[in-house]
Amino acid sequence: MTAIRTVAVAGLGLIGGSLARDLAARGVRVLGCDPDAGALDAAVAEGVVSALGPGLEGVEDADALVLAVHVHAAPALLQAVAPRLDGVRLITDAGSTKAGIVAAAARLGLGAKFVGAHPLAGDHRSGWPASRLGLFAGAALYLTPSPESGAEAVALARELWTLVGTRTVEMDAEEHDRLLAWISHLPQVVSSALAAVLAGRGITRGDLGRGGRDVTRLAGSSPGMWRDILAANAAAVTDAIAEMERQLAAARAAIDSGDADAIQAWLAEPNQWAAREP
Amino acid sequence: MTAIRTVAVAGLGLIGGSLARDLAARGVRVLGCDPDAGALDAAVAEGVVSALGPGLEGVEDADALVLAVHVHAAPALLQAVAPRLDGVRLITDAGSTKAGIVAAAARLGLGAKFVGAHPLAGDHRSGWPASRLGLFAGAALYLTPSPESGAEAVALARELWTLVGTRTVEMDAEEHDRLLAWISHLPQVVSSALAAVLAGRGITRGDLGRGGRDVTRLAGSSPGMWRDILAANAAAVTDAIAEMERQLAAARAAIDSGDADAIQAWLAEPNQWAAREP
Repeated sequence: MTAIRTVAVAGLGLIGGSLARDLAARGVRVLGCDPDAGALDAAVAEGVVSALGPGLEGVEDADALVLAVHVHAAPALLQAVAPRLDGVRLITDAGSTKAGIVAAAARLGLGAKFVGAHPLAGDHRSGWPASRLGLFAGAALYLTPSPESGAEAVALARELWTLVGTRTVEMDAEEHDRLLAWISHLPQVVSSALAAVLAGRGITRGDLGRGGRDVTRLAGSSPGMWRDILAANAAAVTDAIAEMERQLAAARAAIDSGDADAIQAWLAEPNQWAAREP
Repeated sequence: MTAIRTVAVAGLGLIGGSLARDLAARGVRVLGCDPDAGALDAAVAEGVVSALGPGLEGVEDADALVLAVHVHAAPALLQAVAPRLDGVRLITDAGSTKAGIVAAAARLGLGAKFVGAHPLAGDHRSGWPASRLGLFAGAALYLTPSPESGAEAVALARELWTLVGTRTVEMDAEEHDRLLAWISHLPQVVSSALAAVLAGRGITRGDLGRGGRDVTRLAGSSPGMWRDILAANAAAVTDAIAEMERQLAAARAAIDSGDADAIQAWLAEPNQWAAREP
């Protein structure tokens, strides 16, 4: 009963494009759309998707709809397409914040079919050209069913994301957004802030060694995508940034003290943390 | 006249071990020592070096001596070995700060033979097991001759480091240390501080996505090595950390304002900087 035969993917960027590739490779029929005609044409030409109309005409044929667009754009898209979703059994998404889209689905009367999802599989790249087979293998998949989510939709969401190799972790939308502020949104801000500091000193990325290039890689992420994520999760993200400022002040105090033991003590905890990597 | 036939390398960690491998592979005779008997035995067993004595006995046969030890240990080692260096034509090092070792060489009457060097080739790994052929290919090599450095020593230093594939950039020791505070020491502190923040929240490195793992990779660097570097360059490093704190505060203010344009403007500059990567 829960088998997924046809999936509509709205947004063929790094996440949506890779999902489409993985699903198509597993024999699922994928319907796709993207406001960038070049991305859509490429996905069709490569045989990955059949094209939906610009208003998602054709989505009626899908078992599941995946919104793989910027978090700010997802609620409006869901509202526009809502009249076409009678036969669709699952609506899910891939956004880096979940509270907003879960609330929007409930407002639109789609709460029973909607199960929020966030595969932790992004990096600094974006767009269809960055999409690839196997992106999700082993990645964490945060699934955020609400009390309204129906059992069939939840089962379909687990099936869909498991099919492409993610490890499912379930939590509610608010808990997800608080957690992601630390594990994803803070690293993005830290990388961008370091890049801004270096840019201000006239230093180029080519001046850095391997380590410095690692730390600043995320600064190359899409500003438009991250503007929306940071705005949508502002309270939790600003808490995390403030804690980072406190840690840097502690490092500065230890170094300024001239006490080698204090510097080593400050370095030891993160070193042990890094060594515990599974 | 300047051909290098025999090089002594004191310290067979990531940098010294990799240098020994590259030199040996190019037909240079390499003499090595390391306080870790296991590292020295392995380097001898692999045919990379012939063993010097624990007090660098045998260094008299070398054309050049490379100090590839922690920056704090280098001056004492140089003092201990000074009586054996009559026939050695170049003394150089590989430390991440240069003012201290350059001053120590001058104090010991070795200024004419000493040419400070710093290959920007390290990463979060350390020790002989991390050493490898080709580590220096394409890496920047900061060479910091002092006014006392003799022409033959400078020529030999350029020859030695060019032989293993580095791109030589010459500047004085103080200028080097100020620059490195931004391009190397600050990224290390930022990575460690982010790791400390996440450790304090009970988050493991395995919870992170690709991007977060990139940003925190340097946190795994040797605390003992970095304690010495940060202590030796404290004034410049604390300036750099303070600037990073100001950037994070600016990010926090933009996000807190709820002004999407302000957030995007803050993200745009580091994004453009990252895109200019050569």
